Amino acid sequence: MKFTIHRQSFMNQLANVTRAVPVKATIPVLTGIKIVAQEDGITLIGSDAEISIEAFLNIQDEAYQLEIIEPGSIVVTARLFSEIIKKLPTDIITIETDEQYLLTIRSGQAVFNLNGIDGQSYPHLPEIVAESTLELPTLLFRDLINQTIFSASNQESRPVLTGLHLSSSDHFLSGVATDSHRLSRRMIPVKYSQEELNFESINIPKKTVQELSRIIEDEDQLKMMVADKQVIFTMDNLVIYSRLLEGNYPDTNRLIPQDHQTEIVVDSQEFLAAIERASLMSHQGKNNVVQLDINDQKVELLVNSNERGQASEIIEVKSAEGDDLKISFNPDYMKDALKSFGPIDIHIGFQTPVRPLLLTPAEKNENESANNQLLQLLTPIRTHY
Amino acid sequence: MKFTIHRQSFMNQLANVTRAVPVKATIPVLTGIKIVAQEDGITLIGSDAEISIEAFLNIQDEAYQLEIIEPGSIVVTARLFSEIIKKLPTDIITIETDEQYLLTIRSGQAVFNLNGIDGQSYPHLPEIVAESTLELPTLLFRDLINQTIFSASNQESRPVLTGLHLSSSDHFLSGVATDSHRLSRRMIPVKYSQEELNFESINIPKKTVQELSRIIEDEDQLKMMVADKQVIFTMDNLVIYSRLLEGNYPDTNRLIPQDHQTEIVVDSQEFLAAIERASLMSHQGKNNVVQLDINDQKVELLVNSNERGQASEIIEVKSAEGDDLKISFNPDYMKDALKSFGPIDIHIGFQTPVRPLLLTPAEKNENESANNQLLQLLTPIRTHY
Repeated sequence: MKFTIHRQSFMNQLANVTRAVPVKATIPVLTGIKIVAQEDGITLIGSDAEISIEAFLNIQDEAYQLEIIEPGSIVVTARLFSEIIKKLPTDIITIETDEQYLLTIRSGQAVFNLNGIDGQSYPHLPEIVAESTLELPTLLFRDLINQTIFSASNQESRPVLTGLHLSSSDHFLSGVATDSHRLSRRMIPVKYSQEELNFESINIPKKTVQELSRIIEDEDQLKMMVADKQVIFTMDNLVIYSRLLEGNYPDTNRLIPQDHQTEIVVDSQEFLAAIERASLMSHQGKNNVVQLDINDQKVELLVNSNERGQASEIIEVKSAEGDDLKISFNPDYMKDALKSFGPIDIHIGFQTPVRPLLLTPAEKNENESANNQLLQLLTPIRTHY
Repeated sequence: MKFTIHRQSFMNQLANVTRAVPVKATIPVLTGIKIVAQEDGITLIGSDAEISIEAFLNIQDEAYQLEIIEPGSIVVTARLFSEIIKKLPTDIITIETDEQYLLTIRSGQAVFNLNGIDGQSYPHLPEIVAESTLELPTLLFRDLINQTIFSASNQESRPVLTGLHLSSSDHFLSGVATDSHRLSRRMIPVKYSQEELNFESINIPKKTVQELSRIIEDEDQLKMMVADKQVIFTMDNLVIYSRLLEGNYPDTNRLIPQDHQTEIVVDSQEFLAAIERASLMSHQGKNNVVQLDINDQKVELLVNSNERGQASEIIEVKSAEGDDLKISFNPDYMKDALKSFGPIDIHIGFQTPVRPLLLTPAEKNENESANNQLLQLLTPIRTHY
């Protein structure tokens, strides 16, 4: 194998592919990336066996300034290789292998030799037969990920909750994540009928959607293919292969309150700042909990006394209506929920101190329809004050 | 105690003082800062028993917008207090204590109560009798610190080597740091004769000079007072008290080679980049070592084969003269040494593969005199190739 390539462009794709590569792996070859040089371009592959990321560097793409001198393939240690490429002195570099799988990198006067492994020893990517390819709205789908995935569970005891639950309806997709203490749901419109969507629901691992969200560029055309136990996302020159999580996802729609006895409207940024202040004090105690005390239009945020002290703040609300209420919750969950909306007014609906509280935008914006909505649900913490 | 103050200005001084405060302390009161309100201003004190930093917030300084309503003092947990001040919503805040040492912070609608400790329980700062106060050139003294202190030892087995050795001569100060593998020396001119300097040499703990370097502002007037076992640095509104390290500092002047058999001149930035590249590979091996091979004007940097591979690079030199030589050294030490000079040409003088190599500026700049010089010394590593 031998090729010359533009260093910076090569490095960008290396960085994308290396995202899938584990620091340690039970199968040692997976700590490497596979490089395949063919006449039409270079393929880079990184994988942790559950997620694989593949980049194709097309010889037609002038950004790569790619010249394939001899086709071939090799596996080389991912992180050291990336660090070397990053620090090389010239714009154009040459990469070459010999029969002993020694990889040579040349850049100006610098020469690096890395001990590689036969490219044939790298696991094959799954061959996936997908019935249909769905074009997704790139920016909306990235929002769907970022506004929900923080609520996914980190507990492996119930694996299906560690991912994003994506379900199809007529002309919209719904993304849900929950760790059973909080729940996030975002709906986005798509151009397909439910029949065209051709899947009911899938559970995608957290790492897959997080890496997808990080890698995807605004201008990329995102496509999704759903197959049995696998999902594939393709972007302009990248492919992410991922297994799906197995198991039955709970029916979360029934958890979402349909009414409320108390409601307040707050500016998300101001309320977030108050919650952040209060959480400095709540983090000092054994229980990380803050209390909201709604009493005849007056809304107060409280952190009850712990070893270090206590805190209180009257919250400026846009409106407060309904029954008086005292309710306690984890301020860190509230921070995540508030941040997901961006700087808008938020409606918070309450039923009782032991029923979930529901956050939704206070006003429908012009793009919002029944198919384009975000909600955040928080389970309160029972306290005995 | 009760006062109102400008939040941001207060926070800046809190941050300076908190630098001295240890995260954990054998004397618990030292994890706090002492706040003293008097008619003429506020004093803040943080200390780890070896270094104390004291800030005075003068009521005359309009930046503080300070109003002292009731004098008094308290000790309050440093980090939580700083974090709260940082996140408060208003520009002007009120701080108040009661007889139970409960500290109340008010800012807009936010109220925090922190459990404090009687200000009287805080250790007293040493009363220091210094014979003379020396005015130091602020920027040059900061350079002296930053260009040397990285060479100080981290090994407590020989405490005196963990600090900066500052010695006086007629109209200049010399700063030396060494861990016995490398040595840094910077001289700077001062306006005093040796007699006026009034001390021979002192050994200042690394932490003291590092914090001084971080805290001091370009426009501050820096003063130093040397007393028995103590040194005091004063800036515009800050005072750093520090104990001195005891023990005899080795005579380092005799270590500095007076001649060389081989010499090269390199651009510090280009040579640094090559060393950084090579060190990616040397870090993979058991011994972190690179080799410089000087052979008839040709200078090559090599990392010999280890488990991962090997590296080599022909170095562009401005000149190379003298005997051929192969010499090995720790690339991380070379990186630190090169960085200390900034972007200039560096002269490297060599004697034999087992004698220290000496880095100095290749050309004297206009400010450079016998009293204003920087040198870096590296001990080679013996290898058996």
